[in-house]
Amino acid sequence: MLDPVTLTADLIACPSVTPRDAGALDVLSTALESIGFAVESFWSGEAPDGPIRNLFATRGTGAPHFAFAGHTDVVPATPEAFIPTIRGALLHGRGAVDMKGAIAAFAAAAARVPDHRGTISLIITGDEEGPATHGTVALIDWMAARGIRPDLCLVGEPTSERQLGDTIKIGRRGSVNMWIDVAGTQGHVAYPHLADNPIPRLTAILTAVQALALDDGTDWFQPSNLEVTDITVGNPAANVIPAHAAARLNIRFNDLHRGDALVARVRDIVIAHGGTLTAKVSGEAFLTEPGPLVDRVAAAIRTAAGIDPVLSTGGGTSDARFLSRLCPVVEFGLLNATMHKQDEAVATADLHALTDIYAEILRTTLP
Amino acid sequence: MLDPVTLTADLIACPSVTPRDAGALDVLSTALESIGFAVESFWSGEAPDGPIRNLFATRGTGAPHFAFAGHTDVVPATPEAFIPTIRGALLHGRGAVDMKGAIAAFAAAAARVPDHRGTISLIITGDEEGPATHGTVALIDWMAARGIRPDLCLVGEPTSERQLGDTIKIGRRGSVNMWIDVAGTQGHVAYPHLADNPIPRLTAILTAVQALALDDGTDWFQPSNLEVTDITVGNPAANVIPAHAAARLNIRFNDLHRGDALVARVRDIVIAHGGTLTAKVSGEAFLTEPGPLVDRVAAAIRTAAGIDPVLSTGGGTSDARFLSRLCPVVEFGLLNATMHKQDEAVATADLHALTDIYAEILRTTLP
Repeated sequence: MLDPVTLTADLIACPSVTPRDAGALDVLSTALESIGFAVESFWSGEAPDGPIRNLFATRGTGAPHFAFAGHTDVVPATPEAFIPTIRGALLHGRGAVDMKGAIAAFAAAAARVPDHRGTISLIITGDEEGPATHGTVALIDWMAARGIRPDLCLVGEPTSERQLGDTIKIGRRGSVNMWIDVAGTQGHVAYPHLADNPIPRLTAILTAVQALALDDGTDWFQPSNLEVTDITVGNPAANVIPAHAAARLNIRFNDLHRGDALVARVRDIVIAHGGTLTAKVSGEAFLTEPGPLVDRVAAAIRTAAGIDPVLSTGGGTSDARFLSRLCPVVEFGLLNATMHKQDEAVATADLHALTDIYAEILRTTLP
Repeated sequence: MLDPVTLTADLIACPSVTPRDAGALDVLSTALESIGFAVESFWSGEAPDGPIRNLFATRGTGAPHFAFAGHTDVVPATPEAFIPTIRGALLHGRGAVDMKGAIAAFAAAAARVPDHRGTISLIITGDEEGPATHGTVALIDWMAARGIRPDLCLVGEPTSERQLGDTIKIGRRGSVNMWIDVAGTQGHVAYPHLADNPIPRLTAILTAVQALALDDGTDWFQPSNLEVTDITVGNPAANVIPAHAAARLNIRFNDLHRGDALVARVRDIVIAHGGTLTAKVSGEAFLTEPGPLVDRVAAAIRTAAGIDPVLSTGGGTSDARFLSRLCPVVEFGLLNATMHKQDEAVATADLHALTDIYAEILRTTLP
């Protein structure tokens, strides 16, 4: 039987800092093949953001198709962080909670539920912590080319906040970055009529943009929020009116908005003040309305861990933004307190408990 | 008899880029002593802004004391610019108009008016183009220690715009720089409640500051003007709320204001939005109301050059800001079109004409 602590440790031992695989998907392939999964993997992208190794594993056939999604890449850490170490109740190492531990727990859960209806798959990428261009997006293309489309998807990101099982994410806000440029004409401050200071126009733009009434939140989302994150003029001379002023902003938005529509609203303001705008939508908002999938995950947590999860849409973006285009997605995994931190660690008891919860989800979803 | 073209050329040949004297004041001393001036000079200040050589020359005794003020230092130029060269109607070289030419013209004028009432002095510094801390300010202290105080002062800055004699400056605006800082708390854009973005407060400050109604101008001054000259946040990360935002502004103000009072008005706005302010007043506004001195300078221009000068208070600051604390000051000199430019040049005819005008001013002021 697969042990989730041992498999987590084996995965931590692979220093798979994005974009490197460092053997992590081989470790996972071996484990999955040992419990009856057919495993395929492929490389995507080129330097410097790639190549990225991605894995798709499947067991069983037909509907319903239940997919577990995750990533084996991790954020950078000291070499010691890739030596998995158990001290007391904790297994230490980079990726312990984000999210090698959850992958190991899901594999161990699948080992415990050998007989199931339909299909179980694992959609595992090595490019979630990086630009995410050659990871889940490439996997979705790869599946589409083969006519594969899951019916339900569970993303194993660390969603628990204080206690394993306390939080399920049923959606994420979208995110868009925008860059505002205002051109002027340089000149001496003593002769302002010969110059054209772009700063008053940039100030007016930022005032208007920061006053935008986006929304008051929804049943499931907090209000959308705009933050101006940088302003650049770069004029060292106190007696010179600058030729140029620029700013950057980010909007985290709920499912009342689409990224392009927000860009258009801000662009109207910018253009009205003679500026120009470029923008990049990192991800749209998505929501998996409470329903059968959410209910089953929540019920499995209650059954296996005895606590009642909160349904959340808070926090940053994840690969769920891509998978939500295919099917209902929920995210549930380990405690996020130590993710991306120096001493990332997971309670070994939580790895066993998460295995119990994931197994219960499989039993109730694919009975 | 002193020739203003020869003396200008001799002065140009000294590469007296601030703070260096490079022999310029020795050339001037020799010329002035040859026409009966008692010359004293002294050094002031230390590296890197000094030492600066300053000169005070006087001829005659008692009242009225008419002072001519100027500077022999120049802004940087290529080595060729320190080889005085006559090509056609023009004498080329760094300092030709700003303002070795005017000093030479005044010395030549004094040579032509050997008999006069009262006192003629020259107050000449080597630190006008630099920080101006060891130049005219030091000369004023030096004179005060000896009980010397002029009754009238003519500064030989290049005030003419299209034709020699078209513009007299009878005042200058003051100038103050201010630096605004707003501190916040850094954080992730997805968790704005855990951060404190300083940019909305800086935007509010700049909006309020740029909307300040300073004045509508006066009979002699254009309206005071505020320009925000820089904004700095310095946050490279699109998903990070910055910890800090700063801006710099400059106000050019007329004689309805004092620098400290403007600083206090802006500081009130900044503090109301939780920011902090530092400021430096570079100079107060001054005005020499039209009256005997202005009238005599204008009349001398009419008599000697046949044109009617405009009375102006425009442009940047000059050492007149310091001298105006002692007595009425007007500024009148050569054409400013080539000052600080690569190919600074003066018409030799203008040097002779300026000599005529300065001589006429001396005759009518000290008859």
